[in-house]
Amino acid sequence: MYELHFAVPMAGAVFCTLNTRHDSNMVSILLKHSEAKIIFVDHQLLDIARGALDLLEKTGTKPPMVVLISESDGSSPTGSSSSSYEYESLLANGHSGFEIRQPESEWDPISVNYTSGTTSSPKGVVYSHRGAYLNTLATLFLHGIGTMPVYLWTVPMFHCNGWCLTWGMAAQGGTNVCLRKVTPKDIFDRIDQHKVTHMAGAPTVLSMIVNSEVRDRKILPHKVEIMTGGAPPPPQIFFKMEELGFGVSQLYGLTETYGPGTYCSWKPEWDSLPLDERLKMKARQGVQHLGLEDVDIKDPVTMESVPADGKTIGEIMFRGNTVMSGYLKDLKATEDAFSGGWFRSGDLAVKHSDGYIEVKDRAKDIVITGGENVCTLEVETVLYNHPAILEAAVVGRPDDFWGQTPCAFVKLKEGFDVDAQDIIKFCQDHLPHYMAPKTVVFEDLPRNSTGKVQKFILREKAKALPL
Amino acid sequence: MYELHFAVPMAGAVFCTLNTRHDSNMVSILLKHSEAKIIFVDHQLLDIARGALDLLEKTGTKPPMVVLISESDGSSPTGSSSSSYEYESLLANGHSGFEIRQPESEWDPISVNYTSGTTSSPKGVVYSHRGAYLNTLATLFLHGIGTMPVYLWTVPMFHCNGWCLTWGMAAQGGTNVCLRKVTPKDIFDRIDQHKVTHMAGAPTVLSMIVNSEVRDRKILPHKVEIMTGGAPPPPQIFFKMEELGFGVSQLYGLTETYGPGTYCSWKPEWDSLPLDERLKMKARQGVQHLGLEDVDIKDPVTMESVPADGKTIGEIMFRGNTVMSGYLKDLKATEDAFSGGWFRSGDLAVKHSDGYIEVKDRAKDIVITGGENVCTLEVETVLYNHPAILEAAVVGRPDDFWGQTPCAFVKLKEGFDVDAQDIIKFCQDHLPHYMAPKTVVFEDLPRNSTGKVQKFILREKAKALPL
Repeated sequence: MYELHFAVPMAGAVFCTLNTRHDSNMVSILLKHSEAKIIFVDHQLLDIARGALDLLEKTGTKPPMVVLISESDGSSPTGSSSSSYEYESLLANGHSGFEIRQPESEWDPISVNYTSGTTSSPKGVVYSHRGAYLNTLATLFLHGIGTMPVYLWTVPMFHCNGWCLTWGMAAQGGTNVCLRKVTPKDIFDRIDQHKVTHMAGAPTVLSMIVNSEVRDRKILPHKVEIMTGGAPPPPQIFFKMEELGFGVSQLYGLTETYGPGTYCSWKPEWDSLPLDERLKMKARQGVQHLGLEDVDIKDPVTMESVPADGKTIGEIMFRGNTVMSGYLKDLKATEDAFSGGWFRSGDLAVKHSDGYIEVKDRAKDIVITGGENVCTLEVETVLYNHPAILEAAVVGRPDDFWGQTPCAFVKLKEGFDVDAQDIIKFCQDHLPHYMAPKTVVFEDLPRNSTGKVQKFILREKAKALPL
Repeated sequence: MYELHFAVPMAGAVFCTLNTRHDSNMVSILLKHSEAKIIFVDHQLLDIARGALDLLEKTGTKPPMVVLISESDGSSPTGSSSSSYEYESLLANGHSGFEIRQPESEWDPISVNYTSGTTSSPKGVVYSHRGAYLNTLATLFLHGIGTMPVYLWTVPMFHCNGWCLTWGMAAQGGTNVCLRKVTPKDIFDRIDQHKVTHMAGAPTVLSMIVNSEVRDRKILPHKVEIMTGGAPPPPQIFFKMEELGFGVSQLYGLTETYGPGTYCSWKPEWDSLPLDERLKMKARQGVQHLGLEDVDIKDPVTMESVPADGKTIGEIMFRGNTVMSGYLKDLKATEDAFSGGWFRSGDLAVKHSDGYIEVKDRAKDIVITGGENVCTLEVETVLYNHPAILEAAVVGRPDDFWGQTPCAFVKLKEGFDVDAQDIIKFCQDHLPHYMAPKTVVFEDLPRNSTGKVQKFILREKAKALPL
């Protein structure tokens, strides 16, 4: 997948990465929607690809050519079709004098990224050469990546083209360290073995690291810079990570902004703040990066900027070169996303007096109870402060009287045993009463492949709870 | 001048910096050529500006409005005209609600930089917003400038807009440390006082530092990264600088490439090379930066790329966003500079097998003696190896028999006394005989304000030498 980030655009084609956790049905839908001409399939995922191709044939769609990526020992899985090619053999037969096909316009598409599907059916987000170039440079800056970094891939490359650091590693002469499976032991082992300098990941990766078994950990060879994004992490996690030797920064963005769009640029004077204040600073999503023209928090109806008071909630909106060209073959969704001349993120935030933004919630994740808005993120932050809680997510549960009430889904740390009442009480002690959950459900949280909690599943579950 | 790098473009105007060492006559020529509407004058340079304005009036040209930058204590020089404004008062009367005037197109001009005049009459090099943005980011990368650097201005801001780091310091939240006069003592004092992290300068600045009095030096608070360019420095100077605690890198470019265009990106494996080899590596001008599309060494007639053999000399040519838009009001010079579809630097170089380029000479600085090409840079490198020589420059001296012969202008270190014959013998021991100077002249080298040796003056002197 890393090599194809260069080969495909250099051949004049558009690159579409697919999430490795999709099933055959989803893959067939995306192959058809993207009109893929060639599919490159890792040997571990051949069955899913085969299933997808079968589905395409059944619906009368011409399936793409298949290029199989064999195991590194060169052995092919049994039963590979005679109509397919093998990646390394294909390379060996290539023309070394092939002339790179430059895009005719810098606005030509370089890639299509299907959104992770937390909101609705996947949409194909189109990236341009121009946007990808600029977001690559901007992401290198915001992550402080100098020459010859060693990068551990705990962010999937199929997610916003690896937050554009696929191209970024090449730009800076970096070393790419890849993992078949992301486990705490693998993370610590690779850092130790390859002297990893930078990595990134959703908060779930950070959570995995701080909750790892001591026997799986290793002393880091130096400070490892880790950039987190995709969802606001519980503030406490920053300092637990720092205790282990990581430097953690936060960014914010969406597939539609090529991944990173804003980042919490740290000011040295904040080092001397009390822990609580530092946590608050760390938890902010910050300021726009060097590649973006504008980020603003606006009233979604009037399009007026909210005051920089740290209180007034508005929608985060983007403008600039590193905002998608549009959704593939979906003019309606594209127009909706850009209505008013800005890209509407669907995320709610406030702007602080120093210009730093802080995400409060997804617009659709807000719980409205008795006419009051509850930012589920704030409730989750309190829940993560509870010593027994490993993971937590809050959604609205329909209620005849209140409209909705906050409902917490909670996974406890191993060896801990508390009941719903304890947790509700804990929240009431730390929040206005109306914000505290009325219901607590104990179970593992459903997450998508990029680590985001799938709140639409939890909302369905909350709806189905017995009265 | 730093503030005006932002204020002028944000007011929708084009910024033209003038060399502070120009005389009234040159300033009047440039004011007229650039059609300046306002001139901002530092109080130290008021007399020169007044002279220029007088000259303009004499030729019937309407002089620009004058804004005087007073001493920091607010006192105005006596006799300031009533028709002029004072900078700080003007600011105090400004509208805080002024809306930034964005360029209509990103290709709109942001600045005009008059070339330093080593070749012919100054030309107005036009920079675009797009090019300036990209070269700013590229220069930050090649210099390894992270967030919140402390930058010492030993490169004048009137030279390629400070190699674009005027804007770069703002992009990275940097601190600007400025000097009224560049002396070794001031350099060491400011580094110590402000904990300078980065600086840059022509080789003459490096030479000034390594030849400084011990009493003027200070132990550096940390490694200070210094980027040198403008002319290839004598290789020895790199390691003398490193002994003093500086990290030195080399870049190459011209006013027409917004300053930096290539840089000698250092590879860790070169650290273990023998000193001689490391010197050779350090002295190369390297590879194109992240903002340029292409740098190549080409035969100036056929436009064919030279082989990457480290031997075949060709002309350095550039292509990309960070090449000037053209010369102001000089279509002929612009067409000549871009003939063949590439920007022709006029500099001669070879390309090594690893793609790194190495400058051999200015096309017009080559000495042709008995039909042989002599790269004056190679002769100068040998001269700098002589223990008694502080500075050296070689030009061609007209000769009835040979056409030209190499003529060395040399400044000795204090307390040394050698004669011409010693120096010629030293060169003959280290070079093919035809390359060794036939004449040695002892005197200070004429330099322009950016530290470049003015070879056109030396050529005149060599021509005028008695037989």
